[in-house]
Parts: sequence; structure tokens; C-alpha cells
Amino acid sequence: MDTADQGAQIEPLLPSASSPIGSSVGRRSLRNDDEAVVDRGGTRSEQRTNFEQEDLEGHRTLYIGVHVPLGSTRHRSHRRHRHHGNKYSRRRSKERARTLVEGRESPIYDTPSQRVQFLLGAEDDDEEHIPHDLFTEMDEICVREGQDSEWRESARWLKFEEDVEDGGERWSKPYVATLSLHSLFELRCCIINSTVLLDMRASTIEEIADMVLDHQDLYSPLGDELRKKVRETLLKQHHHQNQKKLANRLPLVRSIKKNMTLVHKINSCQLTASQSQLAVQDGKGDISRDNSSVDFSKIDIHFMKKIPPGAEACNVLVGELEFLNKPVVAFVRLSPAVLLNGLAEVPIATRFLFILLGPLGRGPQYHEIGRSIATLMTDEKRKKSNILPNGLVEGDEEEEHDAHGSPELQRTGRWFGGLILDIKRKVPHYLSDYTDAFSLQCVASFLFLYCACMSPVITFGGLLGEATEGRISAIESLFGASLTGIAYSLFAGQPLTILGSTGPVLVFEKILFKFCKEYGLSYLSLRTCIGLWTAFLCILLVATDASSLVCYITRFTEEAFASLICIIFIYEALEKLIHLGKHYPFNKNNNLDKLTLYSCSCVEPSDPTNGTLKYWEMNNITASEIYWEALEVKGCIENRGEFVGSACGPQGPYVPDVLFWCVILFFSTVFMSAFLKEFKFSNYFPTKVRSVISDFAVFITILTMVLVDYALGVPSPKLKVPSVFKPTRDDRGWFITPLGPNPWWTAVITVVPAMLCTILIFMDQQITAVIINRKEHKLKKGCGYHLDLFMVGVMLGVCSLMGLPWFVAATVLSITHVNSLKLESECSAPGEQPKFLGIREQRFTGLMIFALMGCSVFMTSVLKFIPMPVLYGVFLYMGASSLRGIQLFDRLRLFGMPAKHQPDFIYLRHVPLRKVHLFTIIQLSCLVLLWIIKTSRAAIVFPMMVLALVFIRKLMDCIFTKRELSWLDDLMPESKKKKLEDAEEVFSPPSFLNK
Amino acid sequence: MDTADQGAQIEPLLPSASSPIGSSVGRRSLRNDDEAVVDRGGTRSEQRTNFEQEDLEGHRTLYIGVHVPLGSTRHRSHRRHRHHGNKYSRRRSKERARTLVEGRESPIYDTPSQRVQFLLGAEDDDEEHIPHDLFTEMDEICVREGQDSEWRESARWLKFEEDVEDGGERWSKPYVATLSLHSLFELRCCIINSTVLLDMRASTIEEIADMVLDHQDLYSPLGDELRKKVRETLLKQHHHQNQKKLANRLPLVRSIKKNMTLVHKINSCQLTASQSQLAVQDGKGDISRDNSSVDFSKIDIHFMKKIPPGAEACNVLVGELEFLNKPVVAFVRLSPAVLLNGLAEVPIATRFLFILLGPLGRGPQYHEIGRSIATLMTDEKRKKSNILPNGLVEGDEEEEHDAHGSPELQRTGRWFGGLILDIKRKVPHYLSDYTDAFSLQCVASFLFLYCACMSPVITFGGLLGEATEGRISAIESLFGASLTGIAYSLFAGQPLTILGSTGPVLVFEKILFKFCKEYGLSYLSLRTCIGLWTAFLCILLVATDASSLVCYITRFTEEAFASLICIIFIYEALEKLIHLGKHYPFNKNNNLDKLTLYSCSCVEPSDPTNGTLKYWEMNNITASEIYWEALEVKGCIENRGEFVGSACGPQGPYVPDVLFWCVILFFSTVFMSAFLKEFKFSNYFPTKVRSVISDFAVFITILTMVLVDYALGVPSPKLKVPSVFKPTRDDRGWFITPLGPNPWWTAVITVVPAMLCTILIFMDQQITAVIINRKEHKLKKGCGYHLDLFMVGVMLGVCSLMGLPWFVAATVLSITHVNSLKLESECSAPGEQPKFLGIREQRFTGLMIFALMGCSVFMTSVLKFIPMPVLYGVFLYMGASSLRGIQLFDRLRLFGMPAKHQPDFIYLRHVPLRKVHLFTIIQLSCLVLLWIIKTSRAAIVFPMMVLALVFIRKLMDCIFTKRELSWLDDLMPESKKKKLEDAEEVFSPPSFLNK
Repeated sequence: MDTADQGAQIEPLLPSASSPIGSSVGRRSLRNDDEAVVDRGGTRSEQRTNFEQEDLEGHRTLYIGVHVPLGSTRHRSHRRHRHHGNKYSRRRSKERARTLVEGRESPIYDTPSQRVQFLLGAEDDDEEHIPHDLFTEMDEICVREGQDSEWRESARWLKFEEDVEDGGERWSKPYVATLSLHSLFELRCCIINSTVLLDMRASTIEEIADMVLDHQDLYSPLGDELRKKVRETLLKQHHHQNQKKLANRLPLVRSIKKNMTLVHKINSCQLTASQSQLAVQDGKGDISRDNSSVDFSKIDIHFMKKIPPGAEACNVLVGELEFLNKPVVAFVRLSPAVLLNGLAEVPIATRFLFILLGPLGRGPQYHEIGRSIATLMTDEKRKKSNILPNGLVEGDEEEEHDAHGSPELQRTGRWFGGLILDIKRKVPHYLSDYTDAFSLQCVASFLFLYCACMSPVITFGGLLGEATEGRISAIESLFGASLTGIAYSLFAGQPLTILGSTGPVLVFEKILFKFCKEYGLSYLSLRTCIGLWTAFLCILLVATDASSLVCYITRFTEEAFASLICIIFIYEALEKLIHLGKHYPFNKNNNLDKLTLYSCSCVEPSDPTNGTLKYWEMNNITASEIYWEALEVKGCIENRGEFVGSACGPQGPYVPDVLFWCVILFFSTVFMSAFLKEFKFSNYFPTKVRSVISDFAVFITILTMVLVDYALGVPSPKLKVPSVFKPTRDDRGWFITPLGPNPWWTAVITVVPAMLCTILIFMDQQITAVIINRKEHKLKKGCGYHLDLFMVGVMLGVCSLMGLPWFVAATVLSITHVNSLKLESECSAPGEQPKFLGIREQRFTGLMIFALMGCSVFMTSVLKFIPMPVLYGVFLYMGASSLRGIQLFDRLRLFGMPAKHQPDFIYLRHVPLRKVHLFTIIQLSCLVLLWIIKTSRAAIVFPMMVLALVFIRKLMDCIFTKRELSWLDDLMPESKKKKLEDAEEVFSPPSFLNK
Repeated sequence: MDTADQGAQIEPLLPSASSPIGSSVGRRSLRNDDEAVVDRGGTRSEQRTNFEQEDLEGHRTLYIGVHVPLGSTRHRSHRRHRHHGNKYSRRRSKERARTLVEGRESPIYDTPSQRVQFLLGAEDDDEEHIPHDLFTEMDEICVREGQDSEWRESARWLKFEEDVEDGGERWSKPYVATLSLHSLFELRCCIINSTVLLDMRASTIEEIADMVLDHQDLYSPLGDELRKKVRETLLKQHHHQNQKKLANRLPLVRSIKKNMTLVHKINSCQLTASQSQLAVQDGKGDISRDNSSVDFSKIDIHFMKKIPPGAEACNVLVGELEFLNKPVVAFVRLSPAVLLNGLAEVPIATRFLFILLGPLGRGPQYHEIGRSIATLMTDEKRKKSNILPNGLVEGDEEEEHDAHGSPELQRTGRWFGGLILDIKRKVPHYLSDYTDAFSLQCVASFLFLYCACMSPVITFGGLLGEATEGRISAIESLFGASLTGIAYSLFAGQPLTILGSTGPVLVFEKILFKFCKEYGLSYLSLRTCIGLWTAFLCILLVATDASSLVCYITRFTEEAFASLICIIFIYEALEKLIHLGKHYPFNKNNNLDKLTLYSCSCVEPSDPTNGTLKYWEMNNITASEIYWEALEVKGCIENRGEFVGSACGPQGPYVPDVLFWCVILFFSTVFMSAFLKEFKFSNYFPTKVRSVISDFAVFITILTMVLVDYALGVPSPKLKVPSVFKPTRDDRGWFITPLGPNPWWTAVITVVPAMLCTILIFMDQQITAVIINRKEHKLKKGCGYHLDLFMVGVMLGVCSLMGLPWFVAATVLSITHVNSLKLESECSAPGEQPKFLGIREQRFTGLMIFALMGCSVFMTSVLKFIPMPVLYGVFLYMGASSLRGIQLFDRLRLFGMPAKHQPDFIYLRHVPLRKVHLFTIIQLSCLVLLWIIKTSRAAIVFPMMVLALVFIRKLMDCIFTKRELSWLDDLMPESKKKKLEDAEEVFSPPSFLNK
């Protein structure tokens, strides 16, 4: 080489080598964010300037500097030693660079095979040069004692590298290969001095060997004898790792089959046509190999699953041969790819072959060179993403706008325009909404949520019953929920939303009932009027596409709302548990030795109060006629008796054991649910078993707890379900007339409370829908805000007419529903984490939950065994698990962390900590305000306050810069942003220091 | 360059570049073993051959190929273009290679600065070329709007790389830098074409700038104007990250101080003499810098702590300058190192300077080149370890033998030879055994262990009291434990061992008592005889150095024993909890409504049995005279009354609440202890707070639980401590005569049971000592098996004469003691995990535990508040936490794991899974066998069975190969082995492909 080459010398060998090997992947797969070990390329300096076209193009035209033998290539290779001189390539790459910058990079430069192709100049898109995924296998020549030498698999690459651990007879953990600079240098040297045969047409390894050796003879002849030996070596049989494992156990089978020749077909669900061609084998050298692929076909299939469909093989063969005095190196690209049977451990067609045979004594070096070429061939880390300062990728920016300003939320300007579009969008998915539910996960989901939904519906009914003197109670609540739920699940735009009863509705009904009682109006009729008006107003909102206003609900509002609801869930779960202490008081001053003297019996009040006397009079009770001592607790309370004795608490006898048992049940439920849910991430049992256990976590927990509770027999409070299907009070039927006994003007005046009610319904419904439709959930079937609201409105009318309570989207239940239907990729490269693919979007689970709820009346005999503390535990679990993924809590935790321990949140990289804290404090204040309102008597204005949050958020534009808000209040998931930023790379332009 | 250079071309630029960047460290710091992302160099192929001397030396003599300007170096640099031609260097490096292989590599080639030094030929060990740790800082030139440009810190290296995250105004997480191949090429090119000035004598940055520019003018003149501008640039002030953070908040302070010139001293506890020299600053350019280092000296100090003492700085200065048309590159080594004030963010002397100033538009490239040189300078990953096939490092092999065949356990052949050596070894540490205890951790430790030890001692005493009809009971046990413990802590060889009572001793005493009763012998006198004989035999064993036999106790035996003891601990904790159910029965069929009718009172037995009648007669009880209904529980039982009523269980009245409350206390204790202990690894609060909480975990838990229990008032069972210091029975004193009323021959015959007893004591004592003295614990003061046994023997005699029970080393308590005294490095590089340094070896904690125990008699008023279930919870926690680090359990878990999820245990890499499983099964069978024996009546032969384990282990030599056993049954900690193997590297010999 001349001095002109010196400049080229500092250009990378292959472009992939200049990517920081092990960088982005390494970081992403690290679960432990607070550990400090993996690179992000180190390129996030603010001083970075824009890259010029020149740089990009220069980068792209790096070349490999190999001797490309013209005779053996079908496409003429471009042979350029200095890219600056080549006008043609310069223009071409300029074009390419432009497409790159515009974010519309064609997928054609993605795979390694393709990159090599491009570098070699054969970039035409004929059918033989379509890029494929690559499976790379490295075999090394190995001399077995007393036997013939053979090729032995020593490593394989499928995204990550796996080595054969010969001692342990197993594959190593998959890991990101890092290469030594030295071996890359050596590899470069190898390729420069080697035989490179592109687009070779060959169908057997024999042909390939011949062509390689022919070419070798042309440039650096080996001599006949050596040539023969090398050829023999290349044709030696290949021994794969999985083969060995079973071969050890099956010596008998092996020997029996030794002389059989088999023709076999492979279950080629994933194989392309070219791969499934399997030649009949001759019965000589290939017997045992052939044999084994029959015996172990199952194992192959298992690993086959991990190989992406359409992948091709790259075989790297390296080894030391004692008879060689100089190395034989060849790089072969086959066209078309050929299934060289037995060469790779899986029956896929081979596209590339790298051969390195050298003199004895340099084994480790050959091994390293083999690893280098294999890693370069497999490397997929080069990504082009031009990140804008605010963290948005150019190409993604459009998509970003979709998040909220999506077509679903565009004002159409026509009456019911949004609704019609929603229906049009939903109809094509309607069938799949049922077929997609075919999964065990869905069964787990609806069983879990059925249990979870029952208790609040019944409790709500009970509370309503107390408030309305039984006019609307548990059975009405159950019936209403079931009816509304079924209709909603069948026809709503987002059937993942679960309807439930909400606090503000309860407050509203209470106020209404009080009002009616005071003014002597019929409560049921009045509420029917209001309900009908509300339904009408809701439908009016649908008609005017009012749902498109939800685009003003940013993450700030959404998270404050969701956090509040979750916290209320947790708070109420704990409150209910503590409340049990009132019902089941325990004796704090038990003297165990005096237990024989303890008792608590009912006696006649020694000094009855006036109230008691009045009560007795009213109920015709004659105190002296009652045999007080024989009265049970209930009877004693009914007759206003007094409890006397050392085992008496303030309200009645102390209840032994129940409270503590409830506490045990409660916390056991919480811990067991959490543990089983996390079981998916443990290392025990096969993946399927684990995921089933994880899916059924809560159901298994409830079942276990019911059994334990039943076995122990402690009378803990149980779920009480109405057992007969009829209205609670006999003076009402299943249809309520809107006017009834009320004066006619009530029908008009009720429009005023109906407006309040509408805001209440609208906010509750839509903000939950926004949370469910979050981009993080990767929903594919689109949302349907208008259709959702329409269904809620219609069912609200129906419920009002039937005298049933109203139901709106319930935040925590909906989030739990979505979480229980998460879909993850099953098949991935070894060592790769399963990817979150989306949610099982279907109508079946919702339908089943509410259908079962409707049938609950007939299942009381089973449901009465469920202890309430277990359900409280489930609530706590649901509330806590719904809090996950809420950034507000991540940010709250930052307060307690010293700076160096803070996780690597993307916004911390870009926004000063004090600004982050300020944002958190504002959000927290809003949350506290909401909390106060929600729990105070003013609960009814709560939806308006949520609306107010939107304005507070707008005001924050004054305090924070746009850039900061784009990081802090943005809908793009954290993980995605970080990935984008980590993938960011410096485009390495050609050397600037050449003289 | 001529063609001869082509060969050199494929040699690495700097030797560290050929190490797989980010490999070993990356893997080590990954907490999550099942994640699959980091490299181990990929060199663990079985085909690896031995490396020849030639390769090693070739590797070592790689050179950098830079123009070394002779004028500016003090030592003549060796300028070799082909190392083969240089006989001198060849011989030298050969010697070096030999020392390497022999594992006695001198530390002189360890640090990067040194490596560069060696490469540059300046390898003489004068005082100016002592290797130092390096802190590397990269500054980039940055133009501020409307202001002067300045150098702005953009990254720093201290083991790991940290980048300035300008947006977030903070440091990024520390991470392993990975470099792009391209920028390494460019760096090489830079150095080839740059100014290299070695051993420059300069004291200010001005001098350095002048010398660099002088040299630049020689080879490639810039012209006067440019030179002036470049010089100005080099002298611009430096702006550091921590400076900025506070500067934002203190604009006022800054402006006020603007014109002040300050001379200040740095708290230089860690600074070497050369570093602490601080020049007086001139009041011009350096003001604000100077200023800031005063304001923020505290922050500097904080980071200073992380910098190893004696470290020097390497400053990398890169930037684009619009006026330059060609790059200015310089590499400077200062000699001596100079504190260039304000250059580095911490006031340490600068040794190296790398300057790269280039034309505009290539900023990112300069940045990458800067990162490359900085990473190469900081890189510490090159390790030379020649691993033998069985996983032992050559240099370590000797050390390995030490583990068990250490001098402590060598037979001396002299009477009491071992004991004398033990004492000689221990005496020099004796003072430090008390001074080393000066730490809060020790307080936490003894408080925790005092609580933990009390309960078993008292329980044991109680059981013994039952078995011996009160001849030896709780107070004797307490007194004996305290006496033995204090003596042992004061004088034993391994004061970390905690003495306690063991099961076999109890069984032995029981048998003895039964025997004495049957044959009418005096139990106390007989056991004194046996005890004296045992003491004598123990001392005989000490005299004959019998303890040296413990070297036959391998990990196999040790783990089976330790596991058993831990499992028994856990089992007993749970058993005791369940046992509470008998004492505190609860009513399973409570009808809450009938509580008013519930009672359980004492009545006269309607149909007294003969036994009862007899009992009454004996105790002068007249049934008819007793007012049965008024009897309390105790009285009723004493008088053999009957319990009648709906609140009665089979034995007496149902006890409300207590059992469930105990369950709650028990599990709360377990979870809270575990949580607080783990709190050290959470991200909240500063490190110190966390470690204190973690140290006091169990004590805080006990305290909390006592308070909660007290507040609730449920009569849970409490710890009962004797309150008066006198023998339980009045018929015995504190001295027992060995013969007493027994015939004279008992004194002789008792030698037979004494022999059994001796084996029992010996095995229990020594195996626990082996576990405590494990190499993993990194003990520095050595062990003292002979001395330990001597102390135990002597105290056994004393206890026997005083009629107190015998005490031996208690495994779980000892392990817990050691675990509570773990010492971790406080100061480490950012991102580095704290290292386990060893154990706080001292006598204070042991002394305090047993001294407190002796005083317990006077603390009954406090101790009586401790609920027993809390202590049971502590036992469960201790048992479970002692199981950690026992490989047997790691291996057991493998059974439930699919192969791909199995952690990357080192033995799995080298031993086939089925062999690992076989080993586990054998060990498990032994464990089960031991369990059966220990819990059966034959518990007394348990120590013999432990001995039998040693023989079983010997038999296993037939089933397993030596290699396999070396991996499975080895004392080297897993982590160390893995580190060694990961550090393993292929020595890259010079290119073999050059033609």
C-alpha cells in the first residue's frame, strides 16, 4: 500500500464497528437504573452542533478496502479507495442522507447483511438482495481423541452472543459482545488479504469449498496436497451444542440408528420456501448428524421459535490446522441463500460464510477474529434518529400530536359527527373484539374484576339504601350496574373502561333525597326527571362533539386526578379495616387468669332514659315481662337493654378474635396478591406457568383466603349479597314515572340540577377514558370518547326510568382492568426482555364481569363465604398497583433521595431539580385541594375542581419554560424517550486530520 | 511512514484499547445476574491453548508510534518501530512476562499513567515516576453570549465516566464508557501528528501553553496572530459543574466578592505534599474561579472524599475555534505534577494534559476524541491472571491452600504447640480488639444479640429445669452463659463466636438425669465428674493439636451442618408460634350474636376420676368446701375443677385475641426486621442514616413491637426472667463437690460418657469456628481453634464445679453476630458499589452481650415487656438471614428453574447441570439424615454423624472428578472466582497475518 492509504487507515473497518459496541442495548436491558455501569454513548453534550450533509455523506461512504474479485460477483462491485473522488457515490449518498434527516429512512439499510451489501456496492433491490435477519453461528475445528476431527459449535448470535460453556455443557447467559480493538484490526487485515466471493451460486458445502479454494489458488496457491486437506477439513461434520446434550443420554438409540438413512421433513411453520428445501442425505459422513436432527428436532424447534421468521444464517468457521503454514481466509455471500444441512444448528438457509483456517498456535486469536466478524454481522445497534432539543424525534413529531389532537378528537362541525366517526372506526374491529378474547388471561381478568367490582357496588347500594330509606338499595345497585355494564361493554367506544359507582353521585343522591323529604316531593320521580335531563344533556354534548375538549387534559391534570382516586381507594381500604375495630371491639385489659369469671349479659336498664321509655312505649315493650338474661345481643339492643359484665365493651360484649383475624386476612391478601403478581419475574418454573399464576394472582389469593377463613371458622364479616331479585321496598316497581305525584313544573326545573350532574358525569367519564387511552397502553383499536359518552348517557336515562343508580367510568377499576390484560411478546431472542405489545382489547371481559354480576343474586350461597377484609385487601392492592407508572409519585420520591441516588429519569437530565420539585409541589397542592373537596361536604363540586386543574396547568406556562414543560408534562412514555435519547449517536465523519 | 509501518498498523493504539472496553467491570457491577447483556470477553472457549512467552512479550512491547520530541523529555524515550529489532526491550519484557506468569507481578504496571510511562520508555522508578491514581476531567471551550468564552467541564472520570447534563444541571449516572472505534482511530491519528511533551517542568498553565506552542511552531507553525489567540484560549478560565449549581443561587455573593483576592488553604487530609501547595492567585482572570472555590469548598471536599489519596489529575481540553484552520493537538506529561489552580474541579496536582483545538464544525468529533483519551487514561481494566483449568489462579493457589491448611492448623508436634502459637498470634491484636470496637455498629450489634441470646438461654434453662426437677434451671443457665461468655470473649481465639446452649447437650443432660434417678445417684455430682473429665479431655485435645483435624471439614460438610442448624432455628421459631395455639385456644365456632350467653366457669367435677379423688386426698382438698364458681383459671386447674360453658375449650376457657395478636406480632417482626435491614440498599436518605437504621434494624423492630404491644394491652406471653440471684433449689449451692454422695468409682467410670460429651463439644465448637473463620469473611486477625477449644474446656470445668449448664459455640447466633459487624468501604468512586472490607473483629460486643446477660436479673422490670412472639420472629429472621450465602440453597433453587433462567454461578459454567444436581441431592440427603437424627431420640449421636459427613464427602471423590469437586466444594467465594474468570483475557500477540 502507498502513503495515500494512510488516510484510509483511520477509517473504521466496517461501519458497525464505529458504533459504541454494547452501548444502547446494554443500557436498556439494565433493570437496575441506579447501577452505574453502562454507556449511553457519552454524546449528550450540549455543545453539539448540527451535522452537515457533508459529514453524513462522508460517513456513509466509508468503504471496506477489500479486494473484490470481479469474476465471482454477479453485480459489479464499486471499488473506491478515496470517496472524495467519486462523484457518483457522493450524489447517491447525499440523497440518502437527506432521506435520513427527514426521518423517512427506508428500511433497506437496517440489517447487517444489507449494510455489507451496501458497502460492497450491490445495493440494487432485486429479490435476491432483500435484507434478512441473521442468525450467526461460530464453529471451531476440534480434534477428538482417537477420532476424526469435527467442527464444534462454540458460540452463536441472535441479537446477543451466547457461548458454549463446555465444562457446564450449556449455553452461557446471552450477553452483549464487546470486542477487542486488536481483534478488529486483525479482522480487517484478514479481509484485506482474503478471498471475498459475493453472490456465489452454490448448493452444497462441497461446491463452496471448491470455489473458495479455486480462488485461493489464483492469488496465493496452497499446493495440491494442502488444498485437498483444507477441503477435507471444510467438509468435516458439524457438531452442535444441543446435539451433544442429548447424545450423552442416548448412546443406544444412536448406535441402532447408525446405518439408517432418513429423509425427513421439518415442521416449517416459520421457514421460508427456500429454507424448507431439504435434500436427501447420502448415508456416509452425515449419518450421525442427520440422525441427531431427527432425535432432537424438538429442541431445534424450541430454539427455532426464537429466530425471527425469514432469518438467514451466517456461518463463521475458524480453526487452527497443523499442516497449514499460512492462513486461508474467505468471506462468501451466497445468492440465493442455501440450506446447507447440518451446517447451522437450526435448519435455516445460509447467506454468509466466513472461513478462517490458520497455522497452529493462534487458536485464541482466530476465536476472537471469528467473534468479531460474527458480532459485526449481527450488530443491529446502528440507529439513525435525529433528536430535537425538546426530546421529540423529528419523524415522531407528527405522531406526537396524534396523542391528544388525534382525529378521534377533532371537531367535525357536524351534528353527531364525532359519534358517527367513532362508530365507523369501531365497526371493523367489532368481531375481533370477541375473537381477541380467546385467552386464559381474559378468564383471569374477569374473575378478578368480578370479585373486585362486587363489593363496591353492593357497598354503594347499601349506603344509598341508608340514605334513601331503602328506596334504592343493594339489589337496585347490582341490577343497575349489571344492566349498564353489559350495554356499555357491548357498544361503547372503549370497552376496557369499567363502570362503577362514584362518590360524588352518592353525595348528589343524598342531597336530593334530603331536599325531597323536606319539600314533600317524590324522590324517585324527581330523580327520574333529573336523570332524563342529564341523559339528554349528555347526548347533546355528544352531538356537539364536546368530548373533543378532553385534549386540554394534560398529564398534569390526569395524574393529579388518578393519584387522588388511587389514594382514596387505599385510604378507604384502610379506613374500612380500622372501622372494623368499632364493630368488633376487643378487650384491652384481659386478665387471662380471670377468664372463668368473664361474661357479658343483658340486663334491664337500671335507670332507663326518657328516650328508652318512649321507645318501649312506642314498640309496646314491657320491661318487666322480658327475660333479659336470655336475650341475645341483637335482642338486647332491640329492647334497649344494658350490657353488664367484665366482658362488655362500651356498646356491647367484646368480640374475641375477629378484629385480629381480619387484620391478618387483610394483610395476607395484600402481600399474597403482590407476591403472586410479581411471580412472573421470578426465575422459577417455565414462563407459561409463571404468567398464568401472575394473571390469576388476585383470584388465587381470594380463593386461598376464603378457604383459610372457612377452615378456621372465625366469624369474620362476609360479603352479603341480596338473594332475591325484587325491589328492596314493596312500594316501588321496576319502572318509575318521571312526574308521578310531583307537580308539573318539577319536570322543567330539574334541568338545573341535571346540568350539575352532567358536568359530574362528563368529567368522571372522560378523564378516566383519557387515562385508559393513554399512549403508554399502545391501544390499537382506537378510542371512542363520543360513543362512550353516548352509551353512558343512554344508560343513565334507562336507569333513571327503572329507578336504578347511575354508573360512570371508575378510574381504579378501569386501570386495574387494563393492567390485567397486558400483552407481552412471547418469542424473543435469548436474553431479550419480553416487549410490552399492548392490551388485549376486547369486549368479552367487561361483558362477563357485568353478566356475572347480574347473576350474583343466584350465587349468594357461594359469595357469602368471601370475607370482607379480603376484599378490602384487594382494594388496597388495586389502589397501590394503579399508582404505578404515575410520574407524580416518582417525583415525590425524589424529595427523599440524595441527588446521586436519583433514578435516571429523562426529565432530570433536562430540567433542573428545583424546577422538577416546584412542579411536583404545585401538583401535590392541587391533589391536596381536590382531596379536601372530595372528602368535605362540597364533594359535589369536585368535578368542577378537576376542570379547574386544566386552568392551573395553563397558568404554569408562566412559571416554566416550554421546554421544561415538554419534559415534565408530556404524554410520551419515559421509557420511549430515554431509548430515543440513548440511541442518539454522533455521526462520525471521515477523518479531519489527514494531511 | 514506510511500508514497514504497515505491520504496526494493526497493533492497538494503546494497550488498554485492546482490552474489551467495558467488559469485566460491566459484568461485575450488574446486580441482576439473570439479565443477559454484558460481555465476559467471550474467551472462555475450551480450545484455548497455552500462550507462549513470545506472545506475552510481544504483547507487552507494543508501542505507540508517536513522535517523541527528544528535547523536552528528561529521560530519553525509546523509539522503536519494530519491537523485534530491539534486543534490550525484548529481554526486559521477557523478564516481565515471566514474573507475570509466576503470579508475582509487581504493582508497577497497574495504573494507566504507569502504562503510558512504560510505553513511552520511561520506566525507571525514580520518585517522579511513581504511578498514581488518576482523576480525569474533560473541559470544552464554550462561548457564552455577550461574554468571554470559557472552558466548561463536560465530563469527568473516576473509575467510571460521568457527564454533565447541562439541561438538568447535574451529573449523569456514572457509567462504563464505551468508545467508538472511529474515535479511537482518530485519537491515534491525533497523537501521531501531535506535540508530545514528556516530563515537562512547568508550574503554571501559562508556561505550559508557551512550551506547547513553541513546539507546535517547530513542526507546523501557526503564525503569530493565531498563536496569540490559541494561547489566550488556553488561559481562559475554567468553569466546573458544581460551581455552576451554586453560582445560580448566589449571584449576590458573587458580585460582592468579585474584586477580592483570597489565599486559602484546603482541608488537605487526603492531599499529598505536592498537592497541598497552593499558590497565591493573581487578581485578574482567576477571580471568580478562586472565589467559587471558597464558596463551594464544602462541595469540593465531598467529591474529594471519593478521590483516592495521592491521585493526580489528567486534564483533557478540547474545543473548536473559528479562527483555526488546522488542529492543534498536544499531549503533555508534567514532572513533577503541578497543582494548576482552577484547572481541575478538585485541587489536586495535574500530571497529564491533553489539548485538542481544531477548526469549527467538528465539535462532536473532538468531544469523542477527548472521551477516548480520557477513558484510556482512566482505564484500569487490564488484569493479568493466568487461570488454570480448575479455576484456580496460579498466584492464588498457594493462598488457596492456606484457606484450610493454613499455619494456624499445622500440627506442631509439640505439646500445646498450637495453643502457644494461637496465643502468640493473638496477643499483638489484643489491644486493638477493644479499640476497634469504637463504632455505633457495635452498639447495634450487642443490643440486637443480647435480645436474641436472652430467650434461648432462658428457654434452655426452663427446659433443663423441667428435665432435672429444678436442679439446674433458668437462673443457673443465665449465670452460666454469662460467666462462660465473658471469659470466652476476653480470652478466646475467635471472639466473634457466640456461645449458646445446644440441643444435644440438653438431650445428654436429660439422659443423665434419668439414669441418676434410676440408680439413685446424685445427678449434680455425677455431672460435675463428667464435666471435669470432659474439660480434661478437651484440654488433652488442645495439647495434641487435635483441632488441626478441622482441615478435613470442607464446604460440603460445613454447609450441610450450617443449613441444618438454620433450618432448625426457623422450624423452631414457627413451631413455637404454632405451639402458642395450644396455650391460647380460640373459639372456632363463635356465634357473635350469642356473646351475651357465653361464659366459662369452674364447677365441681360431676364425676371425679380416681386420680382426681386421690389428688384431693393427697392435697387435703374437700370438694364440697370449695366455692368453685369463684375460682380463677389457675385455682380451678389446681383443684382439678371442671370448666363448663360455651366459652370453654378442651383444657380451659378459650383465650380471646391472644393467638392472633401473637401471629401479627411474629410476622410484623420478621417483615420489619427484614425491611429495615434492607433499607441500606434503598435510595432514600443519606448513606449514614441508612446504615444506622440498617444496623439497628432488629433492635428498632423489637422496641417498636414492645411499644405497640404495650399500647394495645393484649396479654401476649412475655419474656420471663428470674428476678433473684440464687440457685433455683435451696438444696444446692454455687459449688458442687465432684463426688458428693456418689460412690468413689463414679469418678472413674464417668470418663466414658465424658468421651461422648467431648466429641459433642468438639464438633459443635469447631465446625462453628470453621464457618466463622470462612475466607469470605476476610478476617484479618487470624483464627485460634486451639485457644477456642481451650477456653471452652476450661469454662466447662468451671461450670461443672458450679453446677451450671455447659455452653458451646452456637452456629446461628455466631453467624448473626458476624453479619451484624460487616464493614464496608465508605469512600468509593461515584457509581462504585461499596466493597466488603471485612468484619469488625473485636471482643467488645461479645463481652457486652454476656455482661448484660449477667445483669439481666436486675432488669426484669424492663425485660418483662418483651413479648415472646417478637423474639420468635427475631429467630425466624436470624435463621433465614443466616441461610444467605449458603451455596446449597442456591443449588436447591436450581431444581425449580428452567436452564435459561439459572443464575450465572461459576460452577454451572464448568460442571454439567446433572452433576451439580447429583451433588445437591447427596448433600440434601445428608441434611435430611442429620435432621432425622437431631430430632429423634438419638440426638446424642448427632456430632458423630457430622463427623460421618466428612467421610461421605471423601467417598464422593469416586463419583465426581477432581475438577468438578474443585468447583462445587471449594472455599473460594463465588464472587471472587467469577471476577477472576471474567478478568481472564486473551493475550493478543502481534499480528500473524503480516506478509
